Amino acid sequence: MTMLEGVTTRPGGRRPGATRTRVDILAAAQRSFAEHGYVLTTIRGVARAAGVDPALVLQFFGSKDGLFDAALRDDPPVRALVTLAGEGDPSDLGPRLAARYLELWEDPHTGPRMLAVVRAATAAPSASAMVTAFMTDEVMLPLARAIGADQAELRAALTGAYLFGVASARYVLGVAPLAALDREAAVTYVAPVVQHHLTGDLTPP
Amino acid sequence: MTMLEGVTTRPGGRRPGATRTRVDILAAAQRSFAEHGYVLTTIRGVARAAGVDPALVLQFFGSKDGLFDAALRDDPPVRALVTLAGEGDPSDLGPRLAARYLELWEDPHTGPRMLAVVRAATAAPSASAMVTAFMTDEVMLPLARAIGADQAELRAALTGAYLFGVASARYVLGVAPLAALDREAAVTYVAPVVQHHLTGDLTPP
Repeated sequence: MTMLEGVTTRPGGRRPGATRTRVDILAAAQRSFAEHGYVLTTIRGVARAAGVDPALVLQFFGSKDGLFDAALRDDPPVRALVTLAGEGDPSDLGPRLAARYLELWEDPHTGPRMLAVVRAATAAPSASAMVTAFMTDEVMLPLARAIGADQAELRAALTGAYLFGVASARYVLGVAPLAALDREAAVTYVAPVVQHHLTGDLTPP
Repeated sequence: MTMLEGVTTRPGGRRPGATRTRVDILAAAQRSFAEHGYVLTTIRGVARAAGVDPALVLQFFGSKDGLFDAALRDDPPVRALVTLAGEGDPSDLGPRLAARYLELWEDPHTGPRMLAVVRAATAAPSASAMVTAFMTDEVMLPLARAIGADQAELRAALTGAYLFGVASARYVLGVAPLAALDREAAVTYVAPVVQHHLTGDLTPP
Protein backbone atom coordinates (compact mmCIF):
# COMPACT_ATOMS: atom_id res chain seq x y z
CA MET A 1 0.00 0.00 0.00
CA THR A 2 2.98 2.33 -0.25
CA MET A 3 1.42 4.07 -3.24
CA LEU A 4 -1.42 5.23 -1.05
CA GLU A 5 0.70 6.90 1.56
CA GLY A 6 0.97 10.17 -0.27
CA VAL A 7 -2.71 10.55 -1.04
CA THR A 8 -4.72 10.19 2.11
CA THR A 9 -8.04 11.92 1.63
CA ARG A 10 -8.41 13.67 4.99
CA PRO A 11 -9.09 17.39 4.46
CA GLY A 12 -5.89 19.26 3.79
CA GLY A 13 -3.93 16.09 4.17
CA ARG A 14 -2.96 15.51 0.55
CA ARG A 15 0.58 15.95 -0.50
CA PRO A 16 1.23 18.10 -3.58
CA GLY A 17 1.69 15.01 -5.76
CA ALA A 18 -1.88 13.83 -5.32
CA THR A 19 -3.44 16.21 -7.85
CA ARG A 20 -0.76 15.41 -10.37
CA THR A 21 -1.33 11.68 -9.82
CA ARG A 22 -5.09 12.08 -10.26
CA VAL A 23 -4.50 13.96 -13.50
CA ASP A 24 -2.15 11.22 -14.71
CA ILE A 25 -4.70 8.51 -13.92
CA LEU A 26 -7.46 10.43 -15.69
CA ALA A 27 -5.28 10.92 -18.75
CA ALA A 28 -4.42 7.21 -18.81
CA ALA A 29 -8.13 6.38 -18.47
CA GLN A 30 -9.07 8.68 -21.36
CA ARG A 31 -6.42 7.04 -23.54
CA SER A 32 -7.65 3.58 -22.59
CA PHE A 33 -11.33 4.37 -23.18
CA ALA A 34 -10.36 5.86 -26.57
CA GLU A 35 -8.05 3.02 -27.63
CA HIS A 36 -9.64 -0.07 -26.08
CA GLY A 37 -13.22 1.04 -25.48
CA TYR A 38 -15.31 0.96 -22.36
CA VAL A 39 -15.79 -2.81 -22.20
CA LEU A 40 -12.11 -3.73 -22.39
CA THR A 41 -10.81 -0.92 -20.19
CA THR A 42 -9.88 -2.16 -16.72
CA ILE A 43 -8.84 -0.49 -13.47
CA ARG A 44 -5.71 -2.65 -13.56
CA GLY A 45 -4.81 -1.58 -17.10
CA VAL A 46 -5.32 2.10 -16.37
CA ALA A 47 -3.23 1.81 -13.20
CA ARG A 48 -0.41 0.14 -15.12
CA ALA A 49 -0.50 2.83 -17.84
CA ALA A 50 -0.42 5.58 -15.21
CA GLY A 51 2.35 3.84 -13.25
CA VAL A 52 0.34 3.57 -10.04
CA ASP A 53 -1.21 0.86 -7.90
CA PRO A 54 -4.78 -0.23 -8.84
CA ALA A 55 -5.85 0.50 -5.26
CA LEU A 56 -4.99 4.15 -5.83
CA VAL A 57 -7.24 4.31 -8.91
CA LEU A 58 -10.06 2.87 -6.82
CA GLN A 59 -9.38 5.32 -4.02
CA PHE A 60 -9.66 8.28 -6.38
CA PHE A 61 -12.52 7.09 -8.59
CA GLY A 62 -14.31 4.25 -6.78
CA SER A 63 -14.92 2.00 -9.80
CA LYS A 64 -14.55 1.75 -13.56
CA ASP A 65 -17.83 3.64 -13.89
CA GLY A 66 -16.52 6.34 -11.58
CA LEU A 67 -13.41 6.59 -13.71
CA PHE A 68 -15.47 6.83 -16.89
CA ASP A 69 -17.73 9.49 -15.45
CA ALA A 70 -14.74 11.58 -14.35
CA ALA A 71 -13.07 11.18 -17.76
CA LEU A 72 -16.32 12.19 -19.46
CA ARG A 73 -16.94 15.27 -17.34
CA ASP A 74 -13.34 16.42 -17.62
CA ASP A 75 -14.05 17.75 -21.09
CA PRO A 76 -13.99 21.55 -21.38
CA PRO A 77 -14.42 21.63 -25.19
CA VAL A 78 -17.70 19.71 -25.14
CA ARG A 79 -19.00 21.64 -22.15
CA ALA A 80 -18.10 24.87 -23.95
CA LEU A 81 -20.68 24.12 -26.67
CA VAL A 82 -23.12 25.78 -24.26
CA THR A 83 -21.44 29.15 -24.75
CA LEU A 84 -22.55 29.15 -28.39
CA ALA A 85 -25.98 30.29 -27.22
CA GLY A 86 -24.50 33.61 -26.13
CA GLU A 87 -22.33 34.16 -29.20
CA GLY A 88 -25.02 34.96 -31.74
CA ASP A 89 -28.69 34.86 -32.61
CA PRO A 90 -30.82 31.77 -31.84
CA SER A 91 -31.92 31.82 -35.48
CA ASP A 92 -28.47 30.72 -36.63
CA LEU A 93 -27.53 28.53 -33.67
CA GLY A 94 -28.06 25.46 -35.87
CA PRO A 95 -25.19 26.23 -38.25
CA ARG A 96 -22.94 27.37 -35.40
CA LEU A 97 -23.61 24.29 -33.27
CA ALA A 98 -23.23 21.90 -36.21
CA ALA A 99 -19.94 23.49 -37.24
CA ARG A 100 -18.45 23.54 -33.73
CA TYR A 101 -19.58 19.99 -32.99
CA LEU A 102 -18.04 18.58 -36.18
CA GLU A 103 -14.87 20.57 -35.45
CA LEU A 104 -14.56 18.79 -32.11
CA TRP A 105 -14.75 15.44 -33.89
CA GLU A 106 -12.05 16.46 -36.37
CA ASP A 107 -9.65 17.98 -33.87
CA PRO A 108 -6.81 15.54 -33.15
CA HIS A 109 -7.03 16.25 -29.41
CA THR A 110 -10.78 16.05 -28.87
CA GLY A 111 -11.78 13.67 -31.70
CA PRO A 112 -10.53 10.44 -30.08
CA ARG A 113 -12.40 11.32 -26.91
CA MET A 114 -15.64 11.96 -28.78
CA LEU A 115 -15.21 8.55 -30.38
CA ALA A 116 -14.58 6.93 -27.01
CA VAL A 117 -17.75 8.49 -25.64
CA VAL A 118 -19.93 7.29 -28.53
CA ARG A 119 -18.48 3.78 -28.28
CA ALA A 120 -19.00 3.65 -24.54
CA ALA A 121 -22.51 5.07 -24.79
CA THR A 122 -23.70 2.07 -26.77
CA ALA A 123 -21.51 -0.53 -25.07
CA ALA A 124 -22.88 -0.75 -21.55
CA PRO A 125 -26.03 0.53 -19.82
CA SER A 126 -24.07 2.20 -17.02
CA ALA A 127 -21.98 4.11 -19.56
CA SER A 128 -25.10 4.98 -21.57
CA ALA A 129 -26.63 6.57 -18.50
CA MET A 130 -23.52 8.62 -17.75
CA VAL A 131 -23.13 9.86 -21.31
CA THR A 132 -26.81 10.75 -21.49
CA ALA A 133 -26.72 12.60 -18.17
CA PHE A 134 -23.64 14.56 -19.18
CA MET A 135 -24.70 15.47 -22.71
CA THR A 136 -28.25 16.32 -21.65
CA ASP A 137 -27.74 18.07 -18.33
CA GLU A 138 -24.45 19.80 -19.05
CA VAL A 139 -24.67 20.58 -22.75
CA MET A 140 -27.85 20.22 -24.78
CA LEU A 141 -30.45 21.23 -22.19
CA PRO A 142 -28.56 24.34 -20.98
CA LEU A 143 -28.12 25.29 -24.63
CA ALA A 144 -31.84 24.93 -25.41
CA ARG A 145 -32.76 26.83 -22.25
CA ALA A 146 -30.26 29.59 -22.97
CA ILE A 147 -32.13 30.51 -26.14
CA GLY A 148 -35.47 30.38 -24.32
CA ALA A 149 -36.80 27.48 -26.37
CA ASP A 150 -40.23 26.02 -25.62
CA GLN A 151 -40.20 22.23 -25.07
CA ALA A 152 -36.52 22.60 -24.16
CA GLU A 153 -36.16 19.00 -22.92
CA LEU A 154 -37.55 17.52 -26.12
CA ARG A 155 -35.58 19.91 -28.35
CA ALA A 156 -32.38 19.08 -26.46
CA ALA A 157 -33.04 15.34 -26.85
CA LEU A 158 -33.83 15.55 -30.59
CA THR A 159 -30.85 17.81 -31.30
CA GLY A 160 -28.53 15.52 -29.37
CA ALA A 161 -29.93 12.43 -31.10
CA TYR A 162 -29.40 13.97 -34.53
CA LEU A 163 -25.83 15.08 -33.81
CA PHE A 164 -25.11 11.64 -32.33
CA GLY A 165 -26.44 9.97 -35.47
CA VAL A 166 -24.55 12.23 -37.86
CA ALA A 167 -21.29 11.83 -35.95
CA SER A 168 -21.75 8.06 -35.75
CA ALA A 169 -22.39 7.84 -39.48
CA ARG A 170 -19.57 10.20 -40.49
CA TYR A 171 -16.84 9.33 -38.00
CA VAL A 172 -17.62 5.90 -36.54
CA LEU A 173 -19.45 3.88 -39.18
CA GLY A 174 -17.83 5.69 -42.09
CA VAL A 175 -20.98 5.95 -44.20
CA ALA A 176 -19.37 6.98 -47.49
CA PRO A 177 -21.43 9.95 -48.72
CA LEU A 178 -21.30 11.62 -45.29
CA ALA A 179 -17.72 10.67 -44.49
CA ALA A 180 -16.44 11.96 -47.83
CA LEU A 181 -17.91 15.47 -47.54
CA ASP A 182 -15.61 18.23 -46.38
CA ARG A 183 -16.73 19.74 -43.10
CA GLU A 184 -18.20 22.88 -44.62
CA ALA A 185 -20.43 20.84 -46.93
CA ALA A 186 -21.44 18.51 -44.12
CA VAL A 187 -22.46 21.51 -42.02
CA THR A 188 -24.54 22.80 -44.92
CA TYR A 189 -26.63 19.62 -44.96
CA VAL A 190 -26.82 19.11 -41.21
CA ALA A 191 -27.35 22.65 -39.94
CA PRO A 192 -30.95 23.17 -41.14
CA VAL A 193 -32.08 20.06 -39.27
CA VAL A 194 -30.23 21.11 -36.11
CA GLN A 195 -31.91 24.51 -36.43
CA HIS A 196 -35.32 22.85 -36.94
CA HIS A 197 -34.88 20.84 -33.75
CA LEU A 198 -33.76 23.88 -31.75
CA THR A 199 -36.20 26.56 -32.91
CA GLY A 200 -38.51 25.14 -35.60
CA ASP A 201 -42.10 23.96 -35.45
CA LEU A 202 -41.63 20.45 -34.08
CA THR A 203 -45.05 19.15 -35.13
CA PRO A 204 -46.04 20.67 -38.46
CA PRO A 205 -49.64 20.03 -39.52
CA MET B 1 -13.63 -33.51 -35.47
CA THR B 2 -16.64 -35.82 -35.32
CA MET B 3 -18.99 -32.83 -35.45
CA LEU B 4 -17.72 -32.02 -38.90
CA GLU B 5 -18.50 -35.36 -40.46
CA GLY B 6 -22.09 -34.55 -41.29
CA VAL B 7 -21.48 -31.19 -42.86
CA THR B 8 -18.90 -31.46 -45.58
CA THR B 9 -19.35 -28.60 -47.99
CA ARG B 10 -18.93 -30.41 -51.32
CA PRO B 11 -21.89 -29.71 -53.64
CA GLY B 12 -24.81 -31.91 -52.80
CA GLY B 13 -22.81 -33.60 -50.12
CA ARG B 14 -24.52 -32.13 -47.08
CA ARG B 15 -26.65 -34.32 -44.94
CA PRO B 16 -30.12 -32.98 -44.10
CA GLY B 17 -28.93 -31.93 -40.62
CA ALA B 18 -26.46 -29.39 -41.95
CA THR B 19 -28.98 -26.66 -42.70
CA ARG B 20 -30.64 -27.18 -39.35
CA THR B 21 -27.24 -26.96 -37.62
CA ARG B 22 -26.37 -23.78 -39.50
CA VAL B 23 -29.67 -22.26 -38.43
CA ASP B 24 -29.01 -23.26 -34.82
CA ILE B 25 -25.55 -21.69 -34.88
CA LEU B 26 -26.92 -18.49 -36.40
CA ALA B 27 -29.66 -18.29 -33.76
CA ALA B 28 -27.09 -18.82 -31.00
CA ALA B 29 -24.90 -16.12 -32.55
CA GLN B 30 -27.79 -13.65 -32.72
CA ARG B 31 -28.58 -14.29 -29.06
CA SER B 32 -24.94 -13.85 -28.08
CA PHE B 33 -24.49 -10.62 -30.07
CA ALA B 34 -27.70 -9.31 -28.48
CA GLU B 35 -26.88 -10.35 -24.92
CA HIS B 36 -23.11 -10.00 -24.72
CA GLY B 37 -22.33 -7.61 -27.55
CA TYR B 38 -19.93 -7.93 -30.44
CA VAL B 39 -16.72 -7.53 -28.44
CA LEU B 40 -17.46 -10.26 -25.89
CA THR B 41 -19.05 -12.73 -28.32
CA THR B 42 -16.68 -15.58 -29.15
CA ILE B 43 -16.77 -18.47 -31.62
CA ARG B 44 -16.29 -20.79 -28.65
CA GLY B 45 -19.23 -19.33 -26.73
CA VAL B 46 -21.55 -19.47 -29.74
CA ALA B 47 -20.52 -23.08 -30.40
CA ARG B 48 -21.22 -24.03 -26.79
CA ALA B 49 -24.64 -22.35 -26.88
CA ALA B 50 -25.50 -24.14 -30.11
CA GLY B 51 -24.20 -27.46 -28.82
CA VAL B 52 -21.62 -27.88 -31.59
CA ASP B 53 -17.86 -27.91 -31.95
CA PRO B 54 -16.16 -24.50 -32.51
CA ALA B 55 -14.55 -25.94 -35.64
CA LEU B 56 -18.00 -26.35 -37.14
CA VAL B 57 -18.83 -22.70 -36.54
CA LEU B 58 -15.60 -21.75 -38.30
CA GLN B 59 -16.37 -24.12 -41.17
CA PHE B 60 -19.75 -22.51 -41.75
CA PHE B 61 -18.88 -18.86 -41.12
CA GLY B 62 -15.09 -18.52 -41.33
CA SER B 63 -14.61 -16.09 -38.43
CA LYS B 64 -16.44 -14.02 -35.82
CA ASP B 65 -16.86 -11.32 -38.46
CA GLY B 66 -18.31 -13.86 -40.87
CA LEU B 67 -20.71 -14.97 -38.18
CA PHE B 68 -21.73 -11.38 -37.46
CA ASP B 69 -22.24 -10.59 -41.13
CA ALA B 70 -24.45 -13.67 -41.58
CA ALA B 71 -26.46 -12.83 -38.46
CA LEU B 72 -26.89 -9.27 -39.70
CA ARG B 73 -28.01 -10.18 -43.20
CA ASP B 74 -30.39 -12.87 -41.96
CA ASP B 75 -32.90 -10.18 -41.05
CA PRO B 76 -36.04 -10.16 -43.22
CA PRO B 77 -37.85 -7.45 -41.19
CA VAL B 78 -35.09 -4.87 -41.68
CA ARG B 79 -34.63 -5.77 -45.32
CA ALA B 80 -38.40 -5.45 -45.79
CA LEU B 81 -38.22 -1.72 -44.99
CA VAL B 82 -37.40 -1.34 -48.68
CA THR B 83 -40.91 -2.47 -49.64
CA LEU B 84 -42.32 0.68 -48.01
CA ALA B 85 -41.36 2.59 -51.15
CA GLY B 86 -43.95 0.66 -53.12
CA GLU B 87 -46.71 0.87 -50.53
CA GLY B 88 -47.62 4.52 -50.86
CA ASP B 89 -46.63 7.94 -52.10
CA PRO B 90 -43.05 9.20 -51.71
CA SER B 91 -44.51 12.33 -50.10
CA ASP B 92 -45.49 10.37 -46.99
CA LEU B 93 -42.64 7.86 -46.94
CA GLY B 94 -41.14 9.75 -43.99
CA PRO B 95 -43.99 8.95 -41.59
CA ARG B 96 -44.29 5.38 -42.87
CA LEU B 97 -40.57 4.67 -42.57
CA ALA B 98 -40.31 6.28 -39.13
CA ALA B 99 -43.30 4.29 -37.85
CA ARG B 100 -42.14 0.95 -39.24
CA TYR B 101 -38.56 1.48 -38.05
CA LEU B 102 -39.62 2.30 -34.49
CA GLU B 103 -41.99 -0.70 -34.57
CA LEU B 104 -39.03 -2.97 -35.33
CA TRP B 105 -37.24 -1.62 -32.26
CA GLU B 106 -40.27 -2.20 -30.05
CA ASP B 107 -41.11 -5.69 -31.30
CA PRO B 108 -39.88 -8.29 -28.80
CA HIS B 109 -38.48 -10.46 -31.60
CA THR B 110 -36.67 -7.85 -33.67
CA GLY B 111 -35.86 -5.26 -30.98
CA PRO B 112 -32.98 -7.14 -29.32
CA ARG B 113 -31.40 -7.69 -32.72
CA MET B 114 -31.64 -3.99 -33.61
CA LEU B 115 -29.92 -3.23 -30.30
CA ALA B 116 -27.19 -5.78 -31.01
CA VAL B 117 -26.55 -4.19 -34.40
CA VAL B 118 -26.26 -0.65 -33.00
CA ARG B 119 -23.94 -1.83 -30.24
CA ALA B 120 -21.76 -3.76 -32.67
CA ALA B 121 -21.70 -0.90 -35.15
CA THR B 122 -19.89 1.36 -32.71
CA ALA B 123 -17.83 -1.35 -31.01
CA ALA B 124 -15.38 -2.45 -33.69
CA PRO B 125 -14.35 -1.12 -37.11
CA SER B 126 -14.99 -4.44 -38.84
CA ALA B 127 -18.53 -4.55 -37.44
CA SER B 128 -19.06 -0.87 -38.35
CA ALA B 129 -18.19 -1.64 -41.95
CA MET B 130 -20.57 -4.60 -42.12
CA VAL B 131 -23.46 -2.72 -40.55
CA THR B 132 -22.89 0.23 -42.86
CA ALA B 133 -22.71 -1.95 -45.95
CA PHE B 134 -25.89 -3.80 -45.03
CA MET B 135 -27.97 -0.79 -43.99
CA THR B 136 -26.78 1.30 -46.95
CA ASP B 137 -26.69 -1.21 -49.78
CA GLU B 138 -29.62 -3.40 -48.77
CA VAL B 139 -32.00 -0.94 -47.14
CA MET B 140 -31.55 2.83 -47.29
CA LEU B 141 -30.09 3.22 -50.76
CA PRO B 142 -32.62 0.89 -52.49
CA LEU B 143 -35.35 2.81 -50.67
CA ALA B 144 -34.09 6.21 -51.83
CA ARG B 145 -33.64 4.91 -55.38
CA ALA B 146 -37.10 3.31 -55.42
CA ILE B 147 -38.71 6.72 -55.02
CA GLY B 148 -36.46 8.21 -57.69
CA ALA B 149 -34.72 10.60 -55.32
CA ASP B 150 -31.94 12.85 -56.60
CA GLN B 151 -28.70 12.62 -54.56
CA ALA B 152 -29.89 9.17 -53.49
CA GLU B 153 -26.60 8.21 -51.79
CA LEU B 154 -26.53 11.34 -49.65
CA ARG B 155 -30.25 11.11 -48.81
CA ALA B 156 -29.83 7.45 -47.83
CA ALA B 157 -26.87 8.32 -45.60
CA LEU B 158 -28.61 11.25 -43.88
CA THR B 159 -31.84 9.30 -43.37
CA GLY B 160 -29.95 6.36 -41.93
CA ALA B 161 -27.87 8.61 -39.68
CA TYR B 162 -30.98 10.29 -38.30
CA LEU B 163 -32.81 7.01 -37.64
CA PHE B 164 -29.65 5.62 -36.03
CA GLY B 165 -29.42 8.66 -33.77
CA VAL B 166 -33.08 8.61 -32.79
CA ALA B 167 -33.02 4.88 -32.04
CA SER B 168 -29.80 5.23 -30.06
CA ALA B 169 -31.26 8.06 -27.99
CA ARG B 170 -34.66 6.42 -27.44
CA TYR B 171 -33.74 2.75 -27.03
CA VAL B 172 -30.03 2.55 -26.16
CA LEU B 173 -29.09 5.68 -24.24
CA GLY B 174 -32.57 6.17 -22.80
CA VAL B 175 -32.67 9.94 -23.28
CA ALA B 176 -35.70 10.70 -21.14
CA PRO B 177 -37.89 13.00 -23.27
CA LEU B 178 -37.53 10.72 -26.30
CA ALA B 179 -37.72 7.43 -24.40
CA ALA B 180 -40.88 8.48 -22.56
CA LEU B 181 -42.93 9.35 -25.64
CA ASP B 182 -45.36 6.74 -26.91
CA ARG B 183 -44.49 5.54 -30.37
CA GLU B 184 -47.14 7.57 -32.17
CA ALA B 185 -45.90 10.80 -30.61
CA ALA B 186 -42.29 9.90 -31.37
CA VAL B 187 -43.20 9.31 -35.00
CA THR B 188 -44.89 12.72 -35.12
CA TYR B 189 -41.66 14.45 -34.16
CA VAL B 190 -39.30 12.28 -36.19
CA ALA B 191 -41.25 11.81 -39.43
CA PRO B 192 -40.91 15.36 -40.84
CA VAL B 193 -37.13 15.15 -40.59
CA VAL B 194 -37.06 11.72 -42.22
CA GLN B 195 -39.24 13.13 -44.98
CA HIS B 196 -36.95 16.15 -45.34
CA HIS B 197 -33.93 13.90 -45.80
CA LEU B 198 -35.73 11.69 -48.32
CA THR B 199 -37.50 14.23 -50.53
CA GLY B 200 -36.88 17.75 -49.19
CA ASP B 201 -34.55 20.49 -50.34
CA LEU B 202 -31.30 19.38 -48.73
CA THR B 203 -29.57 22.74 -48.99
CA PRO B 204 -32.08 25.52 -48.43
CA PRO B 205 -30.82 29.03 -49.17
